[in-house]
Amino acid sequence: MQRYKLTVEYDGTPFYGWQRQDDVPSVQAVLEDACSSYVATPTEVFCAGRTDAGVHARGQVVHVDFPEARNPYSILRGLNTLMLPHPVVVTAVEAVGQDFNARLSATRRHYEYRIINRTARLALDEHRAWYVRKPLDVDAMNDAARYLIGHHDFTSFRDSNCQAKHPMRTLDSLLVVRHGEDITVTCSSKSFLHHQVRNMVGTLALVGHGKWQPSDVKAALDARDRRAAGPTAPAHGLYFMRVDY
Amino acid sequence: MQRYKLTVEYDGTPFYGWQRQDDVPSVQAVLEDACSSYVATPTEVFCAGRTDAGVHARGQVVHVDFPEARNPYSILRGLNTLMLPHPVVVTAVEAVGQDFNARLSATRRHYEYRIINRTARLALDEHRAWYVRKPLDVDAMNDAARYLIGHHDFTSFRDSNCQAKHPMRTLDSLLVVRHGEDITVTCSSKSFLHHQVRNMVGTLALVGHGKWQPSDVKAALDARDRRAAGPTAPAHGLYFMRVDY
Repeated sequence: MQRYKLTVEYDGTPFYGWQRQDDVPSVQAVLEDACSSYVATPTEVFCAGRTDAGVHARGQVVHVDFPEARNPYSILRGLNTLMLPHPVVVTAVEAVGQDFNARLSATRRHYEYRIINRTARLALDEHRAWYVRKPLDVDAMNDAARYLIGHHDFTSFRDSNCQAKHPMRTLDSLLVVRHGEDITVTCSSKSFLHHQVRNMVGTLALVGHGKWQPSDVKAALDARDRRAAGPTAPAHGLYFMRVDY
Repeated sequence: MQRYKLTVEYDGTPFYGWQRQDDVPSVQAVLEDACSSYVATPTEVFCAGRTDAGVHARGQVVHVDFPEARNPYSILRGLNTLMLPHPVVVTAVEAVGQDFNARLSATRRHYEYRIINRTARLALDEHRAWYVRKPLDVDAMNDAARYLIGHHDFTSFRDSNCQAKHPMRTLDSLLVVRHGEDITVTCSSKSFLHHQVRNMVGTLALVGHGKWQPSDVKAALDARDRRAAGPTAPAHGLYFMRVDY
């Protein structure tokens, strides 16, 4: 038995999210089916963080146990061929010890959220970014973001279906950067609650539009009530970028 | 009669190129049909540079004559709604004089060519970049590119179907930049021959792989023979970025 750490990129558009479900396409099913074919035995994979339908990944991480050791480069080429024509690829493979767990060993997770802020709807970036027509004030969004950084009870930014045991999280960074019409929100934390990033982005957008003051975000956080914060930003702007171990 | 300059973005993937043809989808047909509906009269559009099947645009420019003046913002919103669900959008509209011609008034055209250079095939960037598996030496590609900059006979880099009157062109810039696995080739010229950018990129890739020395590109240029240069890089890595007037 040999454990491998796989780094995985995918286009979330055609999938009903990461998790395997009956009768609908999922990233997990594509990857597990490829692994099972590759080692000719039913194989399960375990990811660092499940993503919702439509959410993309540049650097999702999974661990998988193979019955015997294989060459990492052969695993990468083999799995990527077996996963054709699905938009899922393994970008790196590393042999790891049995103590490595993609979810539990993670020390920090990094997400990016892409917004395109312009008058025209999207052509080249459809399904790849959130299209926001009205101008967003990025300075105000950053002023608001600073209230969220740190160790807080994030109940107001947590989906009602979130299964985490407690709502306390430490948000290490949350930064909004504009390059022309492209706005990127980057954030990192040891772990995130369900929909936390999308709920934070949807709330920051209210500030960006001037409907909320930055301090309203602090009030929303303090309320510890999902109804106090803003709406959930669309899935297709979110990218799971990287995991630190 | 009022002439307008439209800046147009499109995803080239579903189209048989810019030019209107019978029975197959084209960018020109989508835009002309929308303009014709908008002003309720058959309307022709004229572009700065026709693009081949699969080639994308961030900043194609066209001119169009409408029977009477309209508000530019209304034109933009109206055309973008009429062009739904096609991945073609007008990103800017400007009223111009009858002396403005999208093709003839252009003083410089800017293209980008995107390459992703890594072991894994593409997931998120499929149809958006050329996937090149073997490592490319960007320094060598830039050494070769310098032979192409300037005023030359580009016969070796010109498609056999090119309809330009002569093969002399002045290449103002040609630069290869790597950021991790992403390689971007940017180039600008008053005008380009048919397939010139893709033929230059395909030839630079031979140098990047070490199959050619940079000086072999000078020899290919001097040969004034299409067969002396390298292959045509795929259409889906090419972006028509901007036109100066």
